[in-house]
Amino acid sequence: MAISIETFFLSPDGEGTLQARIQQMIAHGILSGRFRKGEKLPSSRKLAQHLGVSRITVTLAYTELLANDYLESRDRSGYFVSENAPEPPQFTPNPTSNGDNIDWSRALGRRFTGGRTPTKPLDWSSYRYPFIYGQTDPSLFDHANWRHCALQALGQKDFSALTTDYFDQDDPKLIEFIARHTLPRRGILAQPDEILVTMGAQNALWLTAQVLLTQRRTAAIEEPCYHALRDILTQSRCHLSAVEVDPNGLPPEALPDHADVIFTTPSHQSPTNATMPLDRRKALLDKAREMDALIVEDDYEFEISFLGSPSPALKSLDTEGRVIYVGSFSKSIFPGLRLGYLVGSKQFIRECRALRASVLRHPPGHIQRTAAYFLSLGHYDSLIRRMGQVFARRRKVMEQALADHGLGVEGRGVFGGSSIWMRAPKGVDTEELDHALRARSVLIEPGRTFFRGPGAPRNFYRLAYSSIPSEHIPEGIAILAQELAKARS
Amino acid sequence: MAISIETFFLSPDGEGTLQARIQQMIAHGILSGRFRKGEKLPSSRKLAQHLGVSRITVTLAYTELLANDYLESRDRSGYFVSENAPEPPQFTPNPTSNGDNIDWSRALGRRFTGGRTPTKPLDWSSYRYPFIYGQTDPSLFDHANWRHCALQALGQKDFSALTTDYFDQDDPKLIEFIARHTLPRRGILAQPDEILVTMGAQNALWLTAQVLLTQRRTAAIEEPCYHALRDILTQSRCHLSAVEVDPNGLPPEALPDHADVIFTTPSHQSPTNATMPLDRRKALLDKAREMDALIVEDDYEFEISFLGSPSPALKSLDTEGRVIYVGSFSKSIFPGLRLGYLVGSKQFIRECRALRASVLRHPPGHIQRTAAYFLSLGHYDSLIRRMGQVFARRRKVMEQALADHGLGVEGRGVFGGSSIWMRAPKGVDTEELDHALRARSVLIEPGRTFFRGPGAPRNFYRLAYSSIPSEHIPEGIAILAQELAKARS
Repeated sequence: MAISIETFFLSPDGEGTLQARIQQMIAHGILSGRFRKGEKLPSSRKLAQHLGVSRITVTLAYTELLANDYLESRDRSGYFVSENAPEPPQFTPNPTSNGDNIDWSRALGRRFTGGRTPTKPLDWSSYRYPFIYGQTDPSLFDHANWRHCALQALGQKDFSALTTDYFDQDDPKLIEFIARHTLPRRGILAQPDEILVTMGAQNALWLTAQVLLTQRRTAAIEEPCYHALRDILTQSRCHLSAVEVDPNGLPPEALPDHADVIFTTPSHQSPTNATMPLDRRKALLDKAREMDALIVEDDYEFEISFLGSPSPALKSLDTEGRVIYVGSFSKSIFPGLRLGYLVGSKQFIRECRALRASVLRHPPGHIQRTAAYFLSLGHYDSLIRRMGQVFARRRKVMEQALADHGLGVEGRGVFGGSSIWMRAPKGVDTEELDHALRARSVLIEPGRTFFRGPGAPRNFYRLAYSSIPSEHIPEGIAILAQELAKARS
Repeated sequence: MAISIETFFLSPDGEGTLQARIQQMIAHGILSGRFRKGEKLPSSRKLAQHLGVSRITVTLAYTELLANDYLESRDRSGYFVSENAPEPPQFTPNPTSNGDNIDWSRALGRRFTGGRTPTKPLDWSSYRYPFIYGQTDPSLFDHANWRHCALQALGQKDFSALTTDYFDQDDPKLIEFIARHTLPRRGILAQPDEILVTMGAQNALWLTAQVLLTQRRTAAIEEPCYHALRDILTQSRCHLSAVEVDPNGLPPEALPDHADVIFTTPSHQSPTNATMPLDRRKALLDKAREMDALIVEDDYEFEISFLGSPSPALKSLDTEGRVIYVGSFSKSIFPGLRLGYLVGSKQFIRECRALRASVLRHPPGHIQRTAAYFLSLGHYDSLIRRMGQVFARRRKVMEQALADHGLGVEGRGVFGGSSIWMRAPKGVDTEELDHALRARSVLIEPGRTFFRGPGAPRNFYRLAYSSIPSEHIPEGIAILAQELAKARS
């Protein structure tokens, strides 16, 4: 029996090459049971004519399906659904199968929703003035070389790195690069068993919180701070002590008398961008020693330091194993990468590794290997340098525009960073401001989620220059100034 | 100043192309501060001669470094370290920085080490008779098409899928494929908000345990069972009730009077390979309804069903939302992939999503998109079919060899699977057997870790045929029989 040509239909909003779409259409027909074994397909000439594509496209699709044993060819009589083609399901899905009679309010043992993650639009790149934080600028990212490294990591030679179940281990190439090149540039020496690859910095902070904190322990955090860190600590049920930061970051003298773990961002305080001076770093270490607390250093955006050399990490001053260091490639390569690392004492790393193995075994091998190539071929440093040059220019334009409109800057990084922390006049709700601005194609990040509790101030916001072209900045700031003026009146 | 040619040295055990190694050597020299800005590099002719490589190789490396701004060329006078080259660190790592004076026995809030993960050798492929479970057979994996799909997912068109921070969302293309094609073939209909992509099946089980279990709740598990599941549940501190499986899998009548969550593997019990018959599935659902328990169905190896069509998932019989379904691509594509999914009621999935976001945000975008292409182009089904054909052959050889030597089979899948569960005579310790066999290039998996507690039987073991060529099986089994005979005497 021949399959009627009318059943072939290329959906107009399909994606991929024509060949891929034809291949997909036929595979789906077989997998769904519409095309049966032994049925004859239209000739490539007829199908090409019917679909309005070139005959070679259909022939190539057929050849590929032949190789995959979806089709078989019989001498001079054309292509047929192969006898070895995958079996369609022999049962139909039960349409009543997604009923729900469960009392989930009782069935759920713990709740994890309710964090205050800000809502960022996924279509941010369609905004004309995206002062959005933490996304990749396609004009800066080194797509070609990343692709090249990914391809290399997909090669036969790297087959085992790609496919192996490492159990609880990391890619040795990536660990070696981090130990030999990345960490020494932060003043840190570490052995492979003092390093753990994580699914981004957030995963590193999460693992650390699980291993170090319990309901009976106290964590000190910066106020304001990265909202996901607050969520992680809240979920761990430890006591939280929030310490207000000043223009030099976390003031050690303001720490409570007792804390078990101090979370800090000395390179660029998140979100105020303050850089902690050397004296204060030493004072913080002294204070931690005094109360026998550990310090978790999120070395946030250290690499975006285009206005001066970054200072060594706090960890580099640590002679006791008191500092746990969190680094990330996700921010500087691209956030979808989800790749970071933890550095700390062997005993600590061993527990984090065991927990990571239980949660997800290990970060995917292919991603680790691709990053190892990207780093070791020097593409990472080139990317950071290029970003620094462009960010410096954008920041200058932004500073000028903010000054022109008299907008209140609350914090900016001494060494760089990718954003400016802003304060609107009291009484302005920046979430409402954000709403009004979106209608005018401007994206800002309201600041409320960085503060704790219901009394969080509403007049702060963050303006990033990591994803907006310089030439759009003045106009974006002008619109912002107009909407701010409206909001005040 | 010129950089002395003697400082250039290609390490003999280096990897990558010669060009990449030269590029890397020079980038490292600059990044480590050995080569300073403005210093002149040897001519490509001299360096080529010195290193014993062709001149074009050196020229290509220089050109690449030029493009990345590590080098600059000056008219007719050669290549120099660029004025824009990355800054070397201005401080040297503190050699005393990795001291450790912390009392970690006090500092660690929780311990996660101590699970009973079996130790598998990372160099398993160098064994001649690897009856190892859960690794990729390079002769079966569809490397070319995986690479092709990965490349497509790395393309400009998919740039945002590659780089975007999805916050807590999944790749819509992958979710769509799972909902429209994968699940219906298991008899399951689900909406996108009833599906969550996870870092493999283990991550799905982990998320489920965190959301459903507390210290006051009880989980029923199969005995023997997948050791990582037991570790996950032990860490959650819930009460554990282990129920011995029989040749039809988990017997519902043996369940305790009360359990909050029942973990089961109906398709192929792990590790015994038992397939649960339809009657028993219905009885299990009835029993769960009676005690108002939830069921977590790990649809383990359902796709490896070369001896008959797989039966529909337990989830397909569920009309109440009582069954939570765990699927995985890691096992059938490759374990290093770390990609699986959870299907369940919206409220449940919402909590799992929030927890996942806190732990790691989302599985990397590029991996999700690559898998979506691999699935939708039909490569996945071809791979499974090819694996089934080869596994069927290997299994036949294995069954024959086991029969020839009179070795005791404890469980084998009715529909297929990738391993046979074996029982050695009482008194044989299969961990010692494993040790003796490794010396003769045979790898087996001792069974003790699948059982609970200190009284775990030591005479079980698993023999997988997923990574060993047919022609090596008879000899491998012969050696096994010899060592078993020695162990008994």
